[in-house]
Amino acid sequence: MSKDKGFVTEITPQGEDFSKWYIDTIKKAELMDYSPVRGCIVFRPDGYAIWENIQKELDHRFKETGHRNAYFPIFIPESFFQKEKDHIEGFNPELPWVTEAAGEKLEERLAIRPTSETMFGHMYAQWINSYRDLPMLINQWANVVRWEKRTLPFLRTSEFLWQEGHTAHEDETDARKETMTMLDVYTEFCENVLAIPVIKGEKTPSERFAGAVDTFSIEAMMKDGRAVQAGTSHYLGTKFAVAFDIKYLDRDNTHQFCHTTSWGVSTRLIGALIMVHGDDRGLVLPPKVAATQVIMIPIGPPKTRDVVIGKTDELYAQLKAAGIRVRIDDRADISPGWKFNEYEMRGIPIRLELGPRDLENGQCVLVSRVSGEKKAVALDNLVAEVESLLAQIHTDMYERASKFRDENTYSVDTLDEYKAAMEEKRGFALAGWCGSDACENQVKEETGATSRNIPFEPEETKSTCLVCGDAAKHTVVFARAY
Amino acid sequence: MSKDKGFVTEITPQGEDFSKWYIDTIKKAELMDYSPVRGCIVFRPDGYAIWENIQKELDHRFKETGHRNAYFPIFIPESFFQKEKDHIEGFNPELPWVTEAAGEKLEERLAIRPTSETMFGHMYAQWINSYRDLPMLINQWANVVRWEKRTLPFLRTSEFLWQEGHTAHEDETDARKETMTMLDVYTEFCENVLAIPVIKGEKTPSERFAGAVDTFSIEAMMKDGRAVQAGTSHYLGTKFAVAFDIKYLDRDNTHQFCHTTSWGVSTRLIGALIMVHGDDRGLVLPPKVAATQVIMIPIGPPKTRDVVIGKTDELYAQLKAAGIRVRIDDRADISPGWKFNEYEMRGIPIRLELGPRDLENGQCVLVSRVSGEKKAVALDNLVAEVESLLAQIHTDMYERASKFRDENTYSVDTLDEYKAAMEEKRGFALAGWCGSDACENQVKEETGATSRNIPFEPEETKSTCLVCGDAAKHTVVFARAY
Repeated sequence: MSKDKGFVTEITPQGEDFSKWYIDTIKKAELMDYSPVRGCIVFRPDGYAIWENIQKELDHRFKETGHRNAYFPIFIPESFFQKEKDHIEGFNPELPWVTEAAGEKLEERLAIRPTSETMFGHMYAQWINSYRDLPMLINQWANVVRWEKRTLPFLRTSEFLWQEGHTAHEDETDARKETMTMLDVYTEFCENVLAIPVIKGEKTPSERFAGAVDTFSIEAMMKDGRAVQAGTSHYLGTKFAVAFDIKYLDRDNTHQFCHTTSWGVSTRLIGALIMVHGDDRGLVLPPKVAATQVIMIPIGPPKTRDVVIGKTDELYAQLKAAGIRVRIDDRADISPGWKFNEYEMRGIPIRLELGPRDLENGQCVLVSRVSGEKKAVALDNLVAEVESLLAQIHTDMYERASKFRDENTYSVDTLDEYKAAMEEKRGFALAGWCGSDACENQVKEETGATSRNIPFEPEETKSTCLVCGDAAKHTVVFARAY
Repeated sequence: MSKDKGFVTEITPQGEDFSKWYIDTIKKAELMDYSPVRGCIVFRPDGYAIWENIQKELDHRFKETGHRNAYFPIFIPESFFQKEKDHIEGFNPELPWVTEAAGEKLEERLAIRPTSETMFGHMYAQWINSYRDLPMLINQWANVVRWEKRTLPFLRTSEFLWQEGHTAHEDETDARKETMTMLDVYTEFCENVLAIPVIKGEKTPSERFAGAVDTFSIEAMMKDGRAVQAGTSHYLGTKFAVAFDIKYLDRDNTHQFCHTTSWGVSTRLIGALIMVHGDDRGLVLPPKVAATQVIMIPIGPPKTRDVVIGKTDELYAQLKAAGIRVRIDDRADISPGWKFNEYEMRGIPIRLELGPRDLENGQCVLVSRVSGEKKAVALDNLVAEVESLLAQIHTDMYERASKFRDENTYSVDTLDEYKAAMEEKRGFALAGWCGSDACENQVKEETGATSRNIPFEPEETKSTCLVCGDAAKHTVVFARAY
């Protein structure tokens, strides 16, 4: 339970109550705060900074793969939703509506966008004339709203931030290639930037995006064993093209419908990286997205304070010039011990301690947030040492998360076996599935677990359906999910 | 009038109809498109890229001056607006309201934010306890909505993109210092990045932001002589602090209200830079925000095509590595002449032509969009030549805009004189003003011009009010404005 004891507020241990641990941590680390609007949070600077770093890393990857950014209106006329029937069925239950503006009732209600397939569709129909205009590859960074009943900061909020890529292609082959390219971009990003291992696969029909022909996802395991869908990529076939009349003149001068895709990740990635890496002391932030990568803490008695701080400032300038995100806490009225705890709780990857004896020895001490290891390093080699430790921390985090996931993934043959296993195990279950909605639903009803995806490369291939015992069409990852 | 003549669509000359020139240009250059939602535009990739560059440049300046970014909800409960009476009076007429969500009527209507003073105020009241928490310096990049009756792409749209800084301080001195710091940041940005000269000054009371104690602005002159408010910075006194109870414990352990500020610029800057720099051939983009700074066009007969393109690719890699935003148009089926016109229309600062004879001479030709001058430069020195020409183009644009503004700024002593002058002159009028709302209103009613601001450093100090003839309290810039 969180209690204020002067400076220190305790964080509920993960083993006691994981949800409480999560909320305690993100509140205490000042990543977010609840807002006065139902289901909406405020992204405070330390939380938003993580999103800014995610954006920078992803945006670069989108542009390298030929995409450009644009911005489309947040309002979507009601009639647009009616055009693609699966789409309206999927999103209608969670739309907020603007019905009046500037003192007058609107003739047509406007939805606040939950996603923008329809708006892109409407515009693409006007912009695309010939095969020469294809592929059209546009991404949008935006806020979207889905009026959720149950919310959880970052992971499920009524308003959230995301990117949505929308592309149009000449044929199915090209569109499917795009769908996979972006799933690969997300996978590489999660692994190399967020240090999160993910399982790539295809969603079952019941878990598809509303309006998609096929949905693909990457799934990550949180420290309580539950799954988070970290990114999705959809092949939309010609469904939106037909609904919005996105046609082009092909090389034989014939009108064809475009094949379209969409793909997105959102601020739920912030929640995921906290739940994958955090521990009982608080946040553990992946170095590549941490707002501060190194916290410098000068230590020692008052008489050496000036000279230690002088050197700290000098080293700060060196690290900053090398592009390292660094901060100093040289407050004299706060003890080093308090600062150590504070920045561990805030998940800063490296703590740099510098005292008078270190100075004499031409060294300082680096402490890794993830392993807790201390290492004395020479000051003349500081930038290289810090860069190397940041890389090591990333690797350590990725390996720790992979090990945890592997240890908490198991295989089951029957629904009873799965239910028994769930009493003592958390995590992902691999099981065979015959492909019927009925069997999938039964798993959900009896266990609370949903099919996460059909992995492209399952650890093991199962031969019979865990529910009906018929031949398995697919091997599926089941898990309780956020 | 715009006509399709095969490849070329003509742009209406500025002298014939400036508004038509503007719309023709931004449509043809694919900066925007009209959306199906009233008053909302789509920012197409070439338009949005300008905003991305504006964001990058400004964000860097905000962070250097100690600000951090955050994100607050787009929905503002109706009751929040009621708390500051000037604020609700100012914004109420243009608010869109969400009244239902997820199939249910909301208990309290939610406005789509037109600006976020109230939401920041509510959160600041919770985050600020002591003088140690001050100053609190947060900026937000966001979409906002004001349901405008008359809209104009980029300059006045129902939804637009902007940044809004909101800061809280211990006292008036510190808050006023912040207000001026940010006005200076905007000024320096307009001059050094957008090549737009601006007039810094204070708004008259009738033109203040709804809820501000003092509003300051920078005003720019468009090529038709009209003004655009390019940025504003507000000192809000303790008005929002009292309304939202933003208090802190001062150094003497006494509760005090914070003094707050807010400041913002928006996507209207895109409209401004087009109207300041564009000409009858189309856009002229400031090099520092142009999506493409150099367009490379290989020329010559088919037999030398491969070797010329090979060299073009090599030079492209050099320029790109140097951080220059460069593109190649090597389409074989489009004539160089068509390409020259096309990229002039799109406002790309430098055209680089490379043909077989150039290759023999180890040179290429650079053409400045702004002066039209051609210069042969040695290929071994290309990066430096391009960088130097980009800098020159920026200077040329700034000087041309300054000259235009100076030539179109004049001084008047009486309202009759102003009215007579307006028949033949466009631009800004400097005039004395007694300080009364009545006189200011009379200018507006009889001329359509509004007071833009009271310049900090007027070219000339006027001694009598242009309307009533009483002693002038201020020298004011009057102009018709977008």
